[in-house]
Amino acid sequence: MTYKNLDTSTAFKTLGALEASDLRQVLNPERIKTYQVKASDTLMYNYAAMPIDEHHLSVLQQLSDELQLTQKYQALVDGNVMNTGENRLVLHHLTRGQVGKTVEADGEDKGAFYREQLSRIKTFSDAVRSGTIVGSTGKRFTTVVQIGIGGSDLGPRAIYLALKGWCTREGIEQLNAQFISNVDPDDAQAVIEQLDLERTLFILVSKSGTTLETLTNRDLVIEAIKKSGITGIDPSAHMVAVTSKSSPLASSSSVLDAFFIDDYIGGRYSSTSAVGAVILSLAYGFETVQLFLEGAHQADLAAQSPKISENAALLDALLGVYLRNVLHYPSTAILPYSQALSRFPAHLQQLDMESNGKHVNRDGETLSYPTGPVIFGEPGTNGQHSFYQLLHQGTDIVPLQFIGFSVSQYEKDIQVEGSSSQEKLNANLVAQIVAFARGKDDTNPNKQFCGNRPSSLLYAKQLNPSVLGSLLAHYENKVMFQGFIWNLNSFDQEGVQLGKVLATKVLNGCEGDEVLESFIGLL
Amino acid sequence: MTYKNLDTSTAFKTLGALEASDLRQVLNPERIKTYQVKASDTLMYNYAAMPIDEHHLSVLQQLSDELQLTQKYQALVDGNVMNTGENRLVLHHLTRGQVGKTVEADGEDKGAFYREQLSRIKTFSDAVRSGTIVGSTGKRFTTVVQIGIGGSDLGPRAIYLALKGWCTREGIEQLNAQFISNVDPDDAQAVIEQLDLERTLFILVSKSGTTLETLTNRDLVIEAIKKSGITGIDPSAHMVAVTSKSSPLASSSSVLDAFFIDDYIGGRYSSTSAVGAVILSLAYGFETVQLFLEGAHQADLAAQSPKISENAALLDALLGVYLRNVLHYPSTAILPYSQALSRFPAHLQQLDMESNGKHVNRDGETLSYPTGPVIFGEPGTNGQHSFYQLLHQGTDIVPLQFIGFSVSQYEKDIQVEGSSSQEKLNANLVAQIVAFARGKDDTNPNKQFCGNRPSSLLYAKQLNPSVLGSLLAHYENKVMFQGFIWNLNSFDQEGVQLGKVLATKVLNGCEGDEVLESFIGLL
Repeated sequence: MTYKNLDTSTAFKTLGALEASDLRQVLNPERIKTYQVKASDTLMYNYAAMPIDEHHLSVLQQLSDELQLTQKYQALVDGNVMNTGENRLVLHHLTRGQVGKTVEADGEDKGAFYREQLSRIKTFSDAVRSGTIVGSTGKRFTTVVQIGIGGSDLGPRAIYLALKGWCTREGIEQLNAQFISNVDPDDAQAVIEQLDLERTLFILVSKSGTTLETLTNRDLVIEAIKKSGITGIDPSAHMVAVTSKSSPLASSSSVLDAFFIDDYIGGRYSSTSAVGAVILSLAYGFETVQLFLEGAHQADLAAQSPKISENAALLDALLGVYLRNVLHYPSTAILPYSQALSRFPAHLQQLDMESNGKHVNRDGETLSYPTGPVIFGEPGTNGQHSFYQLLHQGTDIVPLQFIGFSVSQYEKDIQVEGSSSQEKLNANLVAQIVAFARGKDDTNPNKQFCGNRPSSLLYAKQLNPSVLGSLLAHYENKVMFQGFIWNLNSFDQEGVQLGKVLATKVLNGCEGDEVLESFIGLL
Repeated sequence: MTYKNLDTSTAFKTLGALEASDLRQVLNPERIKTYQVKASDTLMYNYAAMPIDEHHLSVLQQLSDELQLTQKYQALVDGNVMNTGENRLVLHHLTRGQVGKTVEADGEDKGAFYREQLSRIKTFSDAVRSGTIVGSTGKRFTTVVQIGIGGSDLGPRAIYLALKGWCTREGIEQLNAQFISNVDPDDAQAVIEQLDLERTLFILVSKSGTTLETLTNRDLVIEAIKKSGITGIDPSAHMVAVTSKSSPLASSSSVLDAFFIDDYIGGRYSSTSAVGAVILSLAYGFETVQLFLEGAHQADLAAQSPKISENAALLDALLGVYLRNVLHYPSTAILPYSQALSRFPAHLQQLDMESNGKHVNRDGETLSYPTGPVIFGEPGTNGQHSFYQLLHQGTDIVPLQFIGFSVSQYEKDIQVEGSSSQEKLNANLVAQIVAFARGKDDTNPNKQFCGNRPSSLLYAKQLNPSVLGSLLAHYENKVMFQGFIWNLNSFDQEGVQLGKVLATKVLNGCEGDEVLESFIGLL
């Protein structure tokens, strides 16, 4: 296997010499039918509205082959050290199934370790949901609160919200879930004041067991429990930990139980590990989690094909690089036409920007081309009444990723003016794809739409646990492939360290740093 | 008054010739103390970490004078037709106080009209909150649900969330508020299933009274009320409208009452009109709304000074244009260190991108320079554990706008490891400003921070209604000044029309458009 920078690739040079297709011209039924690839059995990726044709596709395949993208993926799932900066394996795929070889590390079979944690999560959540495990005053738990930040918050929160409607319609008994993340004390307070503490189970999530925000919020919660005046309530019987085996929380008497992750699961890739599984299994039951994991595993398997015509994550990654490095578009919007995905763009923002927002390659050499774009987004149709103005008529082009579903989650809908709300929703989605691509001429320049705005569409029948798993894994794998293309390490986050060091310095009285002193003096 | 494109300005050419200050060098206590301007009596704008010095400031003042920015603002508040595309006045400032002359339009004094609506809102909300007006089955209202989209949703929602903690600590009796916006039927369903319909008052918000999403969701709600089986419940007694006097909702028997706005209040500028005031007044009482409006009015008055050393909105606008048009940064992140402002970036995203995401000037001529940037953001410290990696070490520079407060809203805090949560929060905020500006050298290139990342800081003692009003108006006025600088019309949104037209076409069976047919066939 060889690693090289994108700008040294022969295929990339060829790609740069091709003219982009003009989206005002190329859309037709045949293209819309054929320019798509399965991301899993349930999720489809359509790229008809991307500014490329067969020539580009052929060169993108060459680029993938030249950069050995799927071989690198195979090396990753086979347990090679792909997080070079931190000298770690990258094993989040293994939390949902076996894609490569059996991986041994830390003296154990890592697949077996993750399966064991899942099994323990099932036993524990079954016991809580059935009332075998109850709170310290004898009452059943009705609410679970995750205390975590970053990857311990954004992914699990997005997934919890994404499945609520589906689980409700399926009649699945639910525990209410809440999240505390910010060190801002108002975040914890706003949650705590709504809780029936006797019936609340807290899930403390920190891989290291030392995350400042998380431990501080844990202490705020313990303080609130102690001050509640409830006779006999014991905070430690209302708290479990998700952490690494070596962390101070792992065997602490201050928690009821602990579930384990390890150093090979990055925070932003941890939604399918215990970090996501504990809260989802408590809230919706273990079977829902299993469906979710199976969907993710399916997408992981689909991402193994070296052919871009069979590998949606790979093709999505390559097209993204075409937009970023050939057409020079600096940002991408994620636009789910599903209110259930309201926080999914925030999760993808972390996943993508924290993974590929890097300026050095995997060997630490400065890169001379742009890497990860700015990612943002809100659900449609809300976004249409907000920032779409700029997307349609602004001076910059922003590539778009639409997500859509045929059927709503609750399946409670009405006909108004001859169509259901779901039909209106999808009519809008389709209308936007076409409006962005084709534009519109008008003698009034204010009503002129330049068009030629690229987009893609991920779609499925309904947002259920399996589809959500596929969607999540599709993006994780897309980001991974882009990291390989840019020849960087998508699995560390050294960029968060300097802020931590300086924050500690401020809390220590600034240690003579007059600039810090002056700024903190303002607040 | 003359209107001209930015690239024809003499001062702009001078500005482009100045070298940007190197933020790794310039920060010092004197600069941090002096590089700031009041945005109102309670809100301060600090720009010490912007890449400029006295030379730039002097040229920015020239630019402001040359482009007559504050004269244009005065013309706007005096009632000139500043929304040229739609031939309308722009009067949102008047909803919170008199900044310019008395404005007559539609045969009435518009200031008096807005005040009358406020007075009616006070009377109505007092009656609901005191129990004088009750639901159709005789029960007091405990929940209010706003049905609206875009400006009828994002601003009011952001403000509602921003004041919840403050009102709780002040002991203000609260009605719970919810929002339904998306035409996705799951959005309405998720809200409806939590409601006690007998105790719920719906607020239907649509200026035209014809917004597809809003009317559809109204019908979904009416259907749910009818199907509830509650004896004697009458949907029309559970619904008020916020609309224009000429709309079909204005005198409909299907609503209990109606409160009015007019064509001179754009959706994204409507938070201080009845669009925001009805729900806020119902949820938190009219006095809270008054404080909020007074804070906004203060910032409007401060924005009148022609001197950038006294006008924070004007300076913020000019510095933003420097970053966009001289330094060529295509996006800006809004980073409030306050969980209460969790949805404030989404509101500013609409405010800014829908106002200034335009490629033609106010006369309809194509512009040859970039206008409104992409706006995104999440609260700190959450963002630090997410996309800050790219902000620190990515290949592109993203300018940052921090927002911070000395004191939390609930004022319930604890000491952990020698500091309170609020102290930790602000230590992080300050650390980030300095980390972005100064960077850090390291022999390990992976731990290298280039620095020279510009940011500004808006700060106040505490996020209370008055400060929030100032913050909102500061951004509205900043966006307005930037529109003047780019010589465009910030007050229309023609870019949303094409999608609407095509969506209707899809709902009509695509009218023979094979591309639309093919795409809708996928879903």
